[in-house]
Amino acid sequence: MNAEIISVGTELLLGQVVNLDTAIVAQELSGLGINLLYSAVVGDNVERLRHAVDTALSRSDLLIMTGGLGPTTDDLTKETTAACAGKRLVLHQESLARIQNYFNEKHVSENQEKQAWLPEGCHVFQNDNGTAPGCAFQAQGGCTVIMLPGPPSELTPMLKNYVVPYLKQGQEQVIVSHNVHIYGRGEAPVAQMMDDLMDGENPTLAPYAKEGECYLRVTARARTVEEADALCQPLIEEIRRRLGDFVYSVDVETLEELVVAKLREQGKTLATAESCTGGLLSKRLTDVPGSSEVFHMGVVTYANQAKEDLLSVSHETLERYGAVSEETAREMAEGMVRRSGSSLGIGITGIAGPEGGTPEKPVGLIYIALSDGEHTWVTKRSPIGRTKSREWHRHCAASQALDMVRRYLLDMPVVAN
Amino acid sequence: MNAEIISVGTELLLGQVVNLDTAIVAQELSGLGINLLYSAVVGDNVERLRHAVDTALSRSDLLIMTGGLGPTTDDLTKETTAACAGKRLVLHQESLARIQNYFNEKHVSENQEKQAWLPEGCHVFQNDNGTAPGCAFQAQGGCTVIMLPGPPSELTPMLKNYVVPYLKQGQEQVIVSHNVHIYGRGEAPVAQMMDDLMDGENPTLAPYAKEGECYLRVTARARTVEEADALCQPLIEEIRRRLGDFVYSVDVETLEELVVAKLREQGKTLATAESCTGGLLSKRLTDVPGSSEVFHMGVVTYANQAKEDLLSVSHETLERYGAVSEETAREMAEGMVRRSGSSLGIGITGIAGPEGGTPEKPVGLIYIALSDGEHTWVTKRSPIGRTKSREWHRHCAASQALDMVRRYLLDMPVVAN
Repeated sequence: MNAEIISVGTELLLGQVVNLDTAIVAQELSGLGINLLYSAVVGDNVERLRHAVDTALSRSDLLIMTGGLGPTTDDLTKETTAACAGKRLVLHQESLARIQNYFNEKHVSENQEKQAWLPEGCHVFQNDNGTAPGCAFQAQGGCTVIMLPGPPSELTPMLKNYVVPYLKQGQEQVIVSHNVHIYGRGEAPVAQMMDDLMDGENPTLAPYAKEGECYLRVTARARTVEEADALCQPLIEEIRRRLGDFVYSVDVETLEELVVAKLREQGKTLATAESCTGGLLSKRLTDVPGSSEVFHMGVVTYANQAKEDLLSVSHETLERYGAVSEETAREMAEGMVRRSGSSLGIGITGIAGPEGGTPEKPVGLIYIALSDGEHTWVTKRSPIGRTKSREWHRHCAASQALDMVRRYLLDMPVVAN
Repeated sequence: MNAEIISVGTELLLGQVVNLDTAIVAQELSGLGINLLYSAVVGDNVERLRHAVDTALSRSDLLIMTGGLGPTTDDLTKETTAACAGKRLVLHQESLARIQNYFNEKHVSENQEKQAWLPEGCHVFQNDNGTAPGCAFQAQGGCTVIMLPGPPSELTPMLKNYVVPYLKQGQEQVIVSHNVHIYGRGEAPVAQMMDDLMDGENPTLAPYAKEGECYLRVTARARTVEEADALCQPLIEEIRRRLGDFVYSVDVETLEELVVAKLREQGKTLATAESCTGGLLSKRLTDVPGSSEVFHMGVVTYANQAKEDLLSVSHETLERYGAVSEETAREMAEGMVRRSGSSLGIGITGIAGPEGGTPEKPVGLIYIALSDGEHTWVTKRSPIGRTKSREWHRHCAASQALDMVRRYLLDMPVVAN
């Protein structure tokens, strides 16, 4: 099945908004085994939109339109697409009732009502996060057309909750994907290690990069979810066998989610003492709802004086080894455990750049310490290869700290090679 | 001048990568007054790419290609586009020398050398952040074709430093844009207040939203930069007159950059005490290179005990008013000034959600206090309208804190209405 996406909106052509919709839809299509061959952006212009839709209807089996379903006169997607596909628009009472309910009013404006006019005989996807419903219908000529609202906060749940199940229904098989998340090995070496597994047809295996990490997606098709899962499992096991403790989760998206979950399971707490990451680690931990159970306290000790005052890092250590040193990181982590009474303490100190580097202590040199009050482990990150951004160094240092906590909690060597 | 963008890369159609390039290029084109009518994504497939390029050459004055210039066999952009445009590829010695220099080797592989083959007679844009150069040339038929590398870290500086000046050269006029950044008034009311100013032809005015903020872009054309600037100034002044102290900068991109700069100017320091934002505020402050001069210390006091221990928030206050209260925010800010010896202290406490809300203290209720040791100001953020995400509440609370510091430093009312 060959698919095509058309995103509608002049704001996308003015660069006011990044086109996230295409990536969101593309990833779901890829998980369903549907080939996406084209994606295009068209402004709020009837002529150009009509031309793009006509072209798509003539060459694709599935056309997904995003955006332009809203209440304003700029929103032309439905009218134009329906006309190209040879469909009338009719008022969908249930959608109108939902819109009235959304605004808590019996009579909504004509503009708002416009959103409830949908192609005759279409399948409606309700919008749980906004007013414009989505829909699916078959155009004259056979192409399946799906229209979805533009805001990612409306599109994403509609896609996952209604559209993906709808597309799966049409297929005789179910498709199941699992993401194997990896920390400590990059996408290129991982892809190389899995090279012989990449040619499989069912399950398939594909590597994806994410900032400072990567993951492998395992996808299988079968008649039932259980059968598809059974096809995935041996491949996931083989990946685990090859990558060992570099695999940090199957289907848990981030290191911080995993770490918060494991801390909760074990009834442990974590406190953070950050210098160069400036609060990014505590920010990431507290991104996870419910983290307050396991994270009570963090400090950002940017200045040396703050390291002495808040963490009791010794003046002598700072003088002799400098703020960016294994010794300082160690004393920060240990000081944090004492200060907070938490089970575990993290200390991070380094040079995030772009200024402040020296030949002995270059930008990107970062020490990360983990202490449980009895033992303390320190990882040294050294800059290698191309110059990376301040943001990159900070993100990777925080990730490394999380990985050390993960390893500690799972009784693995805390400092990986 | 009508333009079109084609981004090349199968990874964009698999949803592995979000297409940032289009937004980056689109925004620059818009600043140059060039109309972008279409953007498309094509996979690494010669047939489909050829078809897209042929269509673009026949209907547009300017075609910008992004991606597919790299060393691998997947990278087909140059060969395909040059063939469509009726150009041979020739070896560009200077680019080859740059690639050799990049790898610090006299002989680079055939794949790497491939990147130095460029359409005959083209204008070359050197790549200061990678290996593949960009280029511009005129196709048979008159369309100007520009090819740029895909990674945003390479594309963005090439675009700003070389391509925009190149495109300006071709124009008899220069185009100058200034962004007026606004905090405390949303895009919709701002657009409404500026309604009568939006129809101008020179300068033009356009509103843009960004997370919890917005900005207005003023763009003018003239024969010289000075003349264009002179055209912009009265409009910028009029915007300032209408929006007053809600305008926080012209051309300084973020509140944190502005606040760090103002603190430096005034020789003041700031310390942060965060509860629900969990380190996000200190993270944003330390995103700014050189922030260590003005930010020495922050604490994340997620638990009540931490608020008492680190900030001396009184047990009675926490008992009587609760952790999420004006009183607690106030004591956090005041405690932070005492604890850190900084000129200013911030205290933030609230309910970021999604759990933890009650009818009296709903998700989104956040108190933000600023203290200078003598006076303390508190802003209360109450949730209104649609349900927002945890991320949104946290981001907006941190922004509001930064805005309070800005207002304090500029002798404005600290708590805006």
